[in-house]
Amino acid sequence: MQLFNTHKELIYEAVEALATRNFHTVYIEDYKEYSEEEKDNGLIAFQTKFNTDFNELNIKSDVWVGEEVSPYLQTGLGIRYPYIDAQTLINNAQKSSESWKKIDIEERAGILTEVLERLKDRFFEIAYATMHTTGQGFAMAFQSSGPHACDRALEAIAMGFSEIKRFPEQIKYEKKVGNNSFQLKKTWKPVPRGISLVIACSTFPVWNSIPAIFASLITGNTVIVKPHPKAVLPIAIVVSELRKVLKESGIKPEVVQLATDITANPIATKLAESPEVKLIDYTGSTKFGNYIESLDKISFTEKGAVNPVIIHSTKDIEAMIQNLAFSLVLYSRQMCTAPQNIYISSDGVKIKDGYVSYDDFCDRLQLAVNSIYEKKWGPSLMGCIQNDNTLKQVKGISMALGKKILDNGSFKMPEHDNARTQSLKILALDSGKQEVFQREIFGPMVFIIKTENVDRSIELALRGVEQFGAITCLVYCSDFMKSKEIEEKFNNVFVPVTFNLTGQIFVNQHSAFSDLHVSGGNVSGNASIVDPSYITKRFVWIGNRYMI
Amino acid sequence: MQLFNTHKELIYEAVEALATRNFHTVYIEDYKEYSEEEKDNGLIAFQTKFNTDFNELNIKSDVWVGEEVSPYLQTGLGIRYPYIDAQTLINNAQKSSESWKKIDIEERAGILTEVLERLKDRFFEIAYATMHTTGQGFAMAFQSSGPHACDRALEAIAMGFSEIKRFPEQIKYEKKVGNNSFQLKKTWKPVPRGISLVIACSTFPVWNSIPAIFASLITGNTVIVKPHPKAVLPIAIVVSELRKVLKESGIKPEVVQLATDITANPIATKLAESPEVKLIDYTGSTKFGNYIESLDKISFTEKGAVNPVIIHSTKDIEAMIQNLAFSLVLYSRQMCTAPQNIYISSDGVKIKDGYVSYDDFCDRLQLAVNSIYEKKWGPSLMGCIQNDNTLKQVKGISMALGKKILDNGSFKMPEHDNARTQSLKILALDSGKQEVFQREIFGPMVFIIKTENVDRSIELALRGVEQFGAITCLVYCSDFMKSKEIEEKFNNVFVPVTFNLTGQIFVNQHSAFSDLHVSGGNVSGNASIVDPSYITKRFVWIGNRYMI
Repeated sequence: MQLFNTHKELIYEAVEALATRNFHTVYIEDYKEYSEEEKDNGLIAFQTKFNTDFNELNIKSDVWVGEEVSPYLQTGLGIRYPYIDAQTLINNAQKSSESWKKIDIEERAGILTEVLERLKDRFFEIAYATMHTTGQGFAMAFQSSGPHACDRALEAIAMGFSEIKRFPEQIKYEKKVGNNSFQLKKTWKPVPRGISLVIACSTFPVWNSIPAIFASLITGNTVIVKPHPKAVLPIAIVVSELRKVLKESGIKPEVVQLATDITANPIATKLAESPEVKLIDYTGSTKFGNYIESLDKISFTEKGAVNPVIIHSTKDIEAMIQNLAFSLVLYSRQMCTAPQNIYISSDGVKIKDGYVSYDDFCDRLQLAVNSIYEKKWGPSLMGCIQNDNTLKQVKGISMALGKKILDNGSFKMPEHDNARTQSLKILALDSGKQEVFQREIFGPMVFIIKTENVDRSIELALRGVEQFGAITCLVYCSDFMKSKEIEEKFNNVFVPVTFNLTGQIFVNQHSAFSDLHVSGGNVSGNASIVDPSYITKRFVWIGNRYMI
Repeated sequence: MQLFNTHKELIYEAVEALATRNFHTVYIEDYKEYSEEEKDNGLIAFQTKFNTDFNELNIKSDVWVGEEVSPYLQTGLGIRYPYIDAQTLINNAQKSSESWKKIDIEERAGILTEVLERLKDRFFEIAYATMHTTGQGFAMAFQSSGPHACDRALEAIAMGFSEIKRFPEQIKYEKKVGNNSFQLKKTWKPVPRGISLVIACSTFPVWNSIPAIFASLITGNTVIVKPHPKAVLPIAIVVSELRKVLKESGIKPEVVQLATDITANPIATKLAESPEVKLIDYTGSTKFGNYIESLDKISFTEKGAVNPVIIHSTKDIEAMIQNLAFSLVLYSRQMCTAPQNIYISSDGVKIKDGYVSYDDFCDRLQLAVNSIYEKKWGPSLMGCIQNDNTLKQVKGISMALGKKILDNGSFKMPEHDNARTQSLKILALDSGKQEVFQREIFGPMVFIIKTENVDRSIELALRGVEQFGAITCLVYCSDFMKSKEIEEKFNNVFVPVTFNLTGQIFVNQHSAFSDLHVSGGNVSGNASIVDPSYITKRFVWIGNRYMI
């Protein structure tokens, strides 16, 4: 209980933030507010790991594996992780489950929050690890795997805490019948489902898996984290810190395990199909996600998406273009929230005193995107392409399919001559070319689709999201009634809508404690981070009764 | 909002009761506390319906169907209900959905609570309708389909209300970054999943479906209620009252529809497989329940169960026997919560100063059961057998498989010479005969299983519940450590345990606002009435954002 007492203010404030849903953060997102020394030490800690065995998990193994390649250096990191076969992982999880299950929610919350506090001291190390596995720019790598991820993890702790605190642990139940009274002792126990498998992705190895890990843990489950073989280190550090704090607290560290595998011998399906695994969290391709959902398990998926932008009208065309351009180039569209299809009618964009034509819009967007590349911070904003397949797919799209707006190939990444980069391709198309744009292209590719009118834009965007799912939908519309109509139509197919963004808030960003990430209601995924069912599905309420 | 204002105290008290989980009731369970006049009028209202068309749904139809047979009279009731084909039901539901979806949670809660208040005036009519379709005795029919059902419905309203009130409707979100501040308007909408299909059962046509109906409605879904063709009237009255209050409130009554079918031409699978149906609640056989769960829908099932009793020791042998006997004969074991397999070691039952032998226990239980039959209120407690298949299955079990403890055939039901009755059969068996007792026998059949010791009792009971599921588990044990062990073992497979019941509280009973009905964690069903996920699975939180 000591750790709970240490952190209870953090936890209670987080619980409150969940209800108010206003801006709330515990971990500072701007790396400039940390000291230079911390940054330097983080880099050293990261570099020291090159070509070594990752021993922090405190695991003995005969087989060590590792195949991470830095998208900046295009050389292997040489870090190796212990390989443990699926059945051993399952056995370990089962053997350790009692020690975690039996402690109460306060103790669990205390231990898990302590882990976040310790991760804080390694934010820079994790940032470099993220940068050199995912290809993210430094600032994003720092935010996404550090403060933002830890805020999300705390959100999961808080939601778990408040869900489990909803029912009393024990009451004296009294029923009066006439002159008689019957008494029972009643207890309610949140019994964890069992083993939770978290399958991480290569682009956001921490952000997309840490809420799941903490949600499963706060509800008493044991967790096996299966990282993407090309993005192990960032999440391996998180798992290590979890195991250390568990051990210090007298809990078996096997409550959390890392299941590193290699591309040639994947372990995910073996684990997923193991009957002891009851919960599966997955972020990645639609195909594998559909397979996960088809298993007779409780699954939490985030799959592919084709996020639309509908442009109808705006009060500030330049601010709109700037905001949109930023969203499009951020991490070279390797974000599940990035817009892909921009629908705009042949009339162009309605502004205060007329229209900006369709062609003008295309030109302005091209200029805005290009000007980001020319900025000093531009390359870092775009980052590298995580893997060759993404690059190949984007390169493979012929600009002859429509009107080329932008196609500049790779760009120079300062200090990293060998970086795998690709500037944003922008292709303008007629709305008839659905076979080209009605599919997910993950990576730096954007379609500007010319439609007959805004209703046709809406119709085409809806068709896309119903078939391929959407995590975000960005709309520019200064007409109140039309906005309401668009909102309702997308909400009805379980797609949230963001309107008229300008300035420093971007559609790609979902804030912990406020924005739900993925609605869970359309085919882009079946879970929402962190709504109540993200927690309640991970345990079962059991009510026992005793005659007294 | 008028109806919300009228009922808001009821609703807020119900919300509070959900958290405290102590005894809470709104609808008086004892029919003797109502007037004789109400009872008489209820009987008349019921009898007036014989051989008429049920017009209260206010539906025109070319086809009218009905095949209800009273288990007391063994003659048809002659009541006919409008038949509507599956596609028309779906179309109606879709056309009416907007009118229900758009109103706010307060208004929905007010309307739904008003329905319960009106049902109160028809409790006796519903009781007779329940009695003459399910075969329940009068007192149970009154309680189960009247006050207990309405308390459960109010529980669903309250849980829906509190879930939907968790997130703010709208906030002004402000994020400060350095000297700048960014503001957004954010809204959260609970968007209903779509059409909810509720498939009712023949033994508890109201109690087992009303929580689902109200849970789906409070979360904004439209509902199609598919009653069992042999038990339509009780739930038809509920649906009628819903439609009346909806209409009075300016909502399209097709928000709730009744899908009466006939045995020869069932409609359930057609509805269940319709793509527009997103939610399915089902109570009934394991086979059909597994089919429902296999569909790519959100399902809430309650299937078969083999509920065990483990008898180890007791401080009051006679009180234990009396309590157990009552639980066994109640509605002739046509309750999903009724015990089936009584495990007792060959040593017998440990009491304060020695043991009651196994044979003595069997004799005492037989005497206790028999003496209930001889009581004036005995036959009504047992009620009738709802259908011939239940009777055939029970009759078909050969007493030669073990030692016959009780097998007296049918019994006389006062005032109803033609009643379909069957007294409880009790068969004592060795634990080796698993093929006999490790399966669900629905109806008046009980096995007393002689085991080597209590550990073997536990092992066999666990094997049963893992394979066939359990909704209840009753344990008599005055040893603290052994009780803890049993509790933990059953809780680990998601079965709640009730200890040492004596007096007027029975394992079959689950109280609204306090006891969760079905854990949802074992194969007896995948949902729990009413835990938070019983509500949250029925809608999707959608968060919209607007630049301001």
